[in-house]
Amino acid sequence: MAMRTHYCGLVTEALMGQTVTLCGWVNRRRDHGGVIFIDVRDREGYVQVVCDPDRAATFAVAENLRNEFCVQVTGLVRARPEGTTNDQLKSGKIEVLCHELKVLNPSVTPPFLLDDDNLSETTRLTHRVLDLRRPAMQRNMMLRYKVTMETRKFLDANGFIDIETPMLGKSTPEGARDYLVPSRVHDGSFFALPQSPQLFKQLLMVAGYDRYYQIVKCFRDEDLRADRQPEFTQIDIETSFLAEEEIREMFEGMIRNVFRNAAGIDLPVFPTMTYGDAMFKYGSDKPDLRVKLEFTELTELMKRVEFKVFSNAATMKGGRVVALRVPGGGAEGGLSRGEIDAYQEFVKIYGAKGLAYIKVNDAAAGREGLQSPIVKNLDDAALAEIIARTGARNGDILFFGADKEKVVNDAIGALRVKIGHSTFGKKAGLFDDRWAPLWVVDFPMFEFDEEGQRWSAVHHPFTAPKDGHEDLMDTAPEKCIAKAYDMVLNGIEMGGGSVRIHREEVQSKVFRALKISAEDAQLKFGFLLDALQYGAPPHGGIAIGLDRLVMLMTGAESIRDVIAFPKTQRAQDLLTQAPSPVDEKQLRELHIRLRNVQQQPA
Amino acid sequence: MAMRTHYCGLVTEALMGQTVTLCGWVNRRRDHGGVIFIDVRDREGYVQVVCDPDRAATFAVAENLRNEFCVQVTGLVRARPEGTTNDQLKSGKIEVLCHELKVLNPSVTPPFLLDDDNLSETTRLTHRVLDLRRPAMQRNMMLRYKVTMETRKFLDANGFIDIETPMLGKSTPEGARDYLVPSRVHDGSFFALPQSPQLFKQLLMVAGYDRYYQIVKCFRDEDLRADRQPEFTQIDIETSFLAEEEIREMFEGMIRNVFRNAAGIDLPVFPTMTYGDAMFKYGSDKPDLRVKLEFTELTELMKRVEFKVFSNAATMKGGRVVALRVPGGGAEGGLSRGEIDAYQEFVKIYGAKGLAYIKVNDAAAGREGLQSPIVKNLDDAALAEIIARTGARNGDILFFGADKEKVVNDAIGALRVKIGHSTFGKKAGLFDDRWAPLWVVDFPMFEFDEEGQRWSAVHHPFTAPKDGHEDLMDTAPEKCIAKAYDMVLNGIEMGGGSVRIHREEVQSKVFRALKISAEDAQLKFGFLLDALQYGAPPHGGIAIGLDRLVMLMTGAESIRDVIAFPKTQRAQDLLTQAPSPVDEKQLRELHIRLRNVQQQPA
Repeated sequence: MAMRTHYCGLVTEALMGQTVTLCGWVNRRRDHGGVIFIDVRDREGYVQVVCDPDRAATFAVAENLRNEFCVQVTGLVRARPEGTTNDQLKSGKIEVLCHELKVLNPSVTPPFLLDDDNLSETTRLTHRVLDLRRPAMQRNMMLRYKVTMETRKFLDANGFIDIETPMLGKSTPEGARDYLVPSRVHDGSFFALPQSPQLFKQLLMVAGYDRYYQIVKCFRDEDLRADRQPEFTQIDIETSFLAEEEIREMFEGMIRNVFRNAAGIDLPVFPTMTYGDAMFKYGSDKPDLRVKLEFTELTELMKRVEFKVFSNAATMKGGRVVALRVPGGGAEGGLSRGEIDAYQEFVKIYGAKGLAYIKVNDAAAGREGLQSPIVKNLDDAALAEIIARTGARNGDILFFGADKEKVVNDAIGALRVKIGHSTFGKKAGLFDDRWAPLWVVDFPMFEFDEEGQRWSAVHHPFTAPKDGHEDLMDTAPEKCIAKAYDMVLNGIEMGGGSVRIHREEVQSKVFRALKISAEDAQLKFGFLLDALQYGAPPHGGIAIGLDRLVMLMTGAESIRDVIAFPKTQRAQDLLTQAPSPVDEKQLRELHIRLRNVQQQPA
Repeated sequence: MAMRTHYCGLVTEALMGQTVTLCGWVNRRRDHGGVIFIDVRDREGYVQVVCDPDRAATFAVAENLRNEFCVQVTGLVRARPEGTTNDQLKSGKIEVLCHELKVLNPSVTPPFLLDDDNLSETTRLTHRVLDLRRPAMQRNMMLRYKVTMETRKFLDANGFIDIETPMLGKSTPEGARDYLVPSRVHDGSFFALPQSPQLFKQLLMVAGYDRYYQIVKCFRDEDLRADRQPEFTQIDIETSFLAEEEIREMFEGMIRNVFRNAAGIDLPVFPTMTYGDAMFKYGSDKPDLRVKLEFTELTELMKRVEFKVFSNAATMKGGRVVALRVPGGGAEGGLSRGEIDAYQEFVKIYGAKGLAYIKVNDAAAGREGLQSPIVKNLDDAALAEIIARTGARNGDILFFGADKEKVVNDAIGALRVKIGHSTFGKKAGLFDDRWAPLWVVDFPMFEFDEEGQRWSAVHHPFTAPKDGHEDLMDTAPEKCIAKAYDMVLNGIEMGGGSVRIHREEVQSKVFRALKISAEDAQLKFGFLLDALQYGAPPHGGIAIGLDRLVMLMTGAESIRDVIAFPKTQRAQDLLTQAPSPVDEKQLRELHIRLRNVQQQPA
């Protein structure tokens, strides 16, 4: 005898007149006209069960049911009385007349109602098991599963094979902080949990596996932001013998396929934009193209103005001046004084000292038509040129950024997104509510690290330079462009990848450019340099952040809503109370001791 | 222009007359009659490429090729000359007449030939990238991938969803030793890497996910045996609302499906055997049913004999006496004196003090027909009974085990397998070369731990007792049978599982039986006990060792042959040299220090 015949949520009129046995949880019990109605829930949805008083034993069981009791119901599927159907439910046309009812396991009263949408994150994570019963969380987990399965199907069909790489690896203190694992067998030595299987996947290409993938946990011991977790999941892919464009085409196809099959979303074809263009127009290497605002470049123009705030920024090394035109922002019903003040505070987060602006009351009226504290500092010609270049019209507002390039890009780039997403922005048609994917390409190989006074890799040190750019690494690193690409969706970086270096001498050149000594390179990456000497094939790949991808798809606000058992922002599991102190014996076996002996409670 | 049009190994006569572009590695180059033949290899196989001297530029490139150069070849597919075809290869009927040949990356001379089958494991693991190029390793990795993909397809079709559980978990120092991960944020606290997602999968059942699976890394910091790795991969599954038999049926179906689809192997239906029967007949809870030998139980019979070795074992508490009849083992061409001597040493590994035997020269002749040092110690009636019960015939040999039950089972159980697998055993028809799967069921809940002088869980403490056995936990733990089952194939445990406890009071009862105090239970498993109170559903599952499963399928001798980047038996990665010392700064951030300050080299 099977414990159940159907899922509750899938009992439909197709089963009319049949006897079914269902298992699930009491979602709600109502007494109505001497009859008891129970909504029984499982992962597929709800079904309405009706208990009549003329079946006394069953009715007695029903009377004692409480929310979240786990029950088994056998009964007859029949049509709901006219006027009581529910179009929101798959089972909304039927109900189950209860013949047998069994409590499989009772429940104490839950600490909160499952449909309470105002729970604190601490409550939700502490009672994660109940939180995971909520239909919204179940939908997220199901969608996450669909995404991975569709990814696997696509990759399988394209000849990629899943190969596992080690979790217990070697610590290479480049980049982010490693999670370390002390070795018991090797006194004083440590494993590191992988930040990514980057080198192993390259080794698999050298070993001839041709097309590799893995949906794999990666680890970074960094301070957490809203969309970061200490352990996160990466769709990690690598292929041999494909050129940069072919690689992008393949993975764009994959993502479009996954969105369609897992979520019924048809993504448009991904446009391609160079890193240079993206920074020039949006001040960001992951522009949100749904926001219909662009920078106007004013650096050259501002070199000759009297206004020091602009001319200093325009003439300093690495300075930049831009305007951001906001159509309708200066008009009646546009941005309020309060909003403009708030923006002036907002840009300071990004290091800007202030936020100049001009309201365009009458574009044709010259100086008289412009309302702004800074107008008096600018000559007529400059003002006219600003209006002309920005294409400003009556009722617009122009914001200005003038500082080091990075500050301008970060501050005005963020302002652009903020305005676009604001209530005003949406009302004024500055936000296009669509799916806006994008490839950003032609990243620089290197960026100058002011703190360390040396060049560092923008992508990672295994990224290949564009053909013909190899020698620029020695002569002009700032001009050296990489075969790197980022996949961006709605202003969020979903993934990134590159064609890798497959020749040992090029790899050594990059290490030199990064001021990694030959000895150091050998110590840390000797196995890679070694492998590259044995006929390594041209290869490249991508890594896509699964958590973020699913978060985007579901529209979840936190990455923790798409992970079954996430950590808090203090890297704790509130459910199991990990991390926790361990026995002294365990530490002794691992040849370590605590640095700060813990205080005993008084 | 695509870098290649086909895989080398898949160029067949279907492409005759077409121009193809191939990428791969030089497997062999031969000069023959002024023409150069190159076997180019990729993951799909080899193809023969012919370079004619009349294409001088191409020929010059070909002349300089060495093994493992990575090359790109464009050429015409044509039939091989008659008499030179190779039926072993998919591409064996054709060759590619080379029009263009490009070295994509040269190779230094590899440290060994790829077809050398006598490499030490140290050499193979140190040069793992080249070792992984060997076709045998590539076949293993491909098969491993197929197994996982077929597993996923089966589970997907049956409504199971893949949900990720944490890698950074809580240390619960039960069972095996944990790998620990120091927390940077929480001074003095540690995460543990999971030994299995057991509790998380149970929590997912409580949370209503109904059917869960994961192919997941698990970790045990134990001393390694030939078939163990510090990190290993588990096919981890759990389902709600299925009874024990339904669960077994489901997963038997899965394994049969995977063997068929991934390896073309049709496994027979799995017979079911109780733990009691398996121990009684084979002295093992994972009997290799290919070996056609069984124990004969003699304990009762031997209680009354004069021979102290037997009667002491038979009368002691927990003692056992058995015979193992080996047909033909005592005959001409049977077991040699040397083999019998070796077996007497062999059983000592398992704690046996010796190995008595009787050669049956003439079963009908009574004492006179039996050849053995022990015959003089046994009376006629006992001897006759031994012959009768074992069914011994002329030419057989009987081995005897007499000791504590565990010693007898281990020693004679191992001897049974050893004889079955021996050259003699195979010649004598004692070994049936087939796939022999088996369910072993009805395990005891508890076994008495002599060292700790307490009961411990045979499976794990979350396993449900048989219905009606709940109270035996208090009154007679040794009689309490569990809803646990092991999946055995060819004498190897592929996986095990159980129906879990879903009621809090039963779980608490088990903790009490295991002498885990209520406080301790709350501290370690409070989140589980808590979850069980909220209407936890009946549930159960299984965990299957993927590495061992693939090892069995491929016939590999070592688990390291089915893992891309395994650790040595000293838990080291010889390729990347992990584990390794780390910076003092890293340790400081983790609030730990080394217990033994390392010696500086003089």
